[in-house]
Amino acid sequence: MELFFTNAINTNQSEAEFDSFESQHILKTMRKSEGNSVHFTDGKGKLFQGRITETKPILRVHYKIVNQVPWPPPSHSILGIGFIRPSRLDYMIEKTTELGINKFYFYASRYTNYFTDNTSRWDKITRQAIKQSNRLYLPEITISPDFSNFLEAVSGVKHKFLADQTASKPLADVLNSLRKKSDEDIVFIIGPEGGFDENEIKLAQYHNFLPVSFSENRLRTETAAISAASYINLIRN
Amino acid sequence: MELFFTNAINTNQSEAEFDSFESQHILKTMRKSEGNSVHFTDGKGKLFQGRITETKPILRVHYKIVNQVPWPPPSHSILGIGFIRPSRLDYMIEKTTELGINKFYFYASRYTNYFTDNTSRWDKITRQAIKQSNRLYLPEITISPDFSNFLEAVSGVKHKFLADQTASKPLADVLNSLRKKSDEDIVFIIGPEGGFDENEIKLAQYHNFLPVSFSENRLRTETAAISAASYINLIRN
Repeated sequence: MELFFTNAINTNQSEAEFDSFESQHILKTMRKSEGNSVHFTDGKGKLFQGRITETKPILRVHYKIVNQVPWPPPSHSILGIGFIRPSRLDYMIEKTTELGINKFYFYASRYTNYFTDNTSRWDKITRQAIKQSNRLYLPEITISPDFSNFLEAVSGVKHKFLADQTASKPLADVLNSLRKKSDEDIVFIIGPEGGFDENEIKLAQYHNFLPVSFSENRLRTETAAISAASYINLIRN
Repeated sequence: MELFFTNAINTNQSEAEFDSFESQHILKTMRKSEGNSVHFTDGKGKLFQGRITETKPILRVHYKIVNQVPWPPPSHSILGIGFIRPSRLDYMIEKTTELGINKFYFYASRYTNYFTDNTSRWDKITRQAIKQSNRLYLPEITISPDFSNFLEAVSGVKHKFLADQTASKPLADVLNSLRKKSDEDIVFIIGPEGGFDENEIKLAQYHNFLPVSFSENRLRTETAAISAASYINLIRN
């Protein structure tokens, strides 16, 4: 199934419109035309199936709902990530969204050297990634003004981990116990390239984050983030 | 520790030379100069520490060996990957080398749409990735003329898996048992974007590959590859 995305949905008339970015994908790349059937999601748990009724000046589809999963999602898979080089951040968003991350927090901390607010670009990336992986949830992205603000925001999450190369607890030891709690919220913090300040680690521990090591080897921020998403995906499946 | 790489090592005189790519990194990016101390590896298990004796016309270092791990590596972490878009292949090589993959096979199969032999580019990427993650092994990359040729090449590997979205066995079920065999060779096959032909899956099964699913959702080839490397990394640590 080829999945498309729009949030311009008129529920009264069972009609949906697609923006130019999406129309391009549907008409040019996938070579659909008037009368053709398409599947699409609103990124909020609904799967629609419909028929293209118009392609100009705007792509319109008359639809019915064919599947619906709970919104908000029953469990949150969350990454908290220090800002990194924008191209690396983009790639990380794509890969981890495919793997099922549905909530991101990007924070600035003592040793972050970058700051970017590419919300509209990130929106395109997450849209493409949920379509690619046939997911019905568009991730939420929040920019946290600082590290402690981010820690407060996720204080209610049940399982909290901080990726730390120097931690004595290997992640493999905790993953098993998590598998039995596969419907509970999980958050992983991944540090920025420059690492954490000692006080930042203490603050995270005070907020009940457990430092775990993924590897004895130094991983780039986005590599650790994709690994964390892979591990959460393992628990969820 | 900042790690560099060279394989131009004169063992008789305990002298090493660095090519222009590496010299640039050492002198320009890391601002080293004559007399400074550097660490480097030959990518074959040796860690050297030395002092820069010359920077022009060529960067030379007088060294001693400070660490040595077995060569070839005691266990192989292998990925077999169908060709994908070159930029995505490059990125995959970088991430999975950081995560400890030390052997790659790139194969053409029925539904691969790409073929690239970027050996010299891949060499640069793996060099950068082992330096980044402080690893002493430079991965080997082999291009397999076809899928069955690749299967023959890895026939001696003990633990063989094929990533297949439709497989009934979730990977999580087998990872635990693997953890106790963390020093044995492992290979994961990741399909190309177009997936496998039915006969290719049968052939892999005939070669004792176990189909496992990473996710109910469709993952891009490079995403599945990075996940596989993350899972092997979990077992090895």
